[in-house]
Amino acid sequence: MDVISRMAPVGAKINHPCAACRMLRRRCGDNCLLAPYFPTQEADNFVGVHKVFGSSNVIKMLQTVKETEREDTVKSMVYEASARLRDPVYGSAGAIFHLQKLVKELESELDLIRARVLESQEQQNQLLRILMDVHHLPPISPFEDIMFDCENLI
Amino acid sequence: MDVISRMAPVGAKINHPCAACRMLRRRCGDNCLLAPYFPTQEADNFVGVHKVFGSSNVIKMLQTVKETEREDTVKSMVYEASARLRDPVYGSAGAIFHLQKLVKELESELDLIRARVLESQEQQNQLLRILMDVHHLPPISPFEDIMFDCENLI
Repeated sequence: MDVISRMAPVGAKINHPCAACRMLRRRCGDNCLLAPYFPTQEADNFVGVHKVFGSSNVIKMLQTVKETEREDTVKSMVYEASARLRDPVYGSAGAIFHLQKLVKELESELDLIRARVLESQEQQNQLLRILMDVHHLPPISPFEDIMFDCENLI
Repeated sequence: MDVISRMAPVGAKINHPCAACRMLRRRCGDNCLLAPYFPTQEADNFVGVHKVFGSSNVIKMLQTVKETEREDTVKSMVYEASARLRDPVYGSAGAIFHLQKLVKELESELDLIRARVLESQEQQNQLLRILMDVHHLPPISPFEDIMFDCENLI
């Protein structure tokens, strides 16, 4: 599950001051921009983004995106804030560095194993040619992905 | 090259107000915390972190880490700020999501190709057994990674 969908969905109607307004000690009106994304019961999320980005930057960021994109914007900011608080030196850039390294390792492993598959196919083709010679059978197309029935060659 | 080492190293002695002090219109003293990491000529880096994290949060973050870790801290914050300004909805979490997806795809591809290697090895073993029978040779150990000389089997 990815970093965005792991997080809880936006809550329904908010009856209490949202986590942001509660922390900032201000009135939480019906038109509070933060309330739908920081319900009272998820105070930690706001504490995190407030510490890392600052409330005013969170608000500015939400104002720059479409309303339909605000939930994902908050989730990604909560994720980044949490990564930064866990690892103040590298934050989520550390996760990116780690994943980039992993991708390179997997790509190298794939290159190696692909080369091995080609080599193995060539060896099978050699074996098949030998068997064709032994049984004086007409040449067949090189063996690649086709399945064969060894019993018929004996 | 990773996200950290791509960036320029910390500059030498600063003679002008650093990019941070210049933007914040304050005196840049010899003991300015930001000067070593935001030289005058790299103003964009500070503009980015200021917009996304806010100057006071950048300073707080630098104060929480060891001096030897400050350069990497700034570089990772500059990277994250740049990612957030480029993609206000997903920021660097978007890059993480993309890389996680890529890792899963590469792992699935590796699993598939490993299964194909095993199948191919089993087919080679079958072919070798048939050749052994044809030439009435004593059984040999299953063919796996060993190289063989087909000429000797004819």
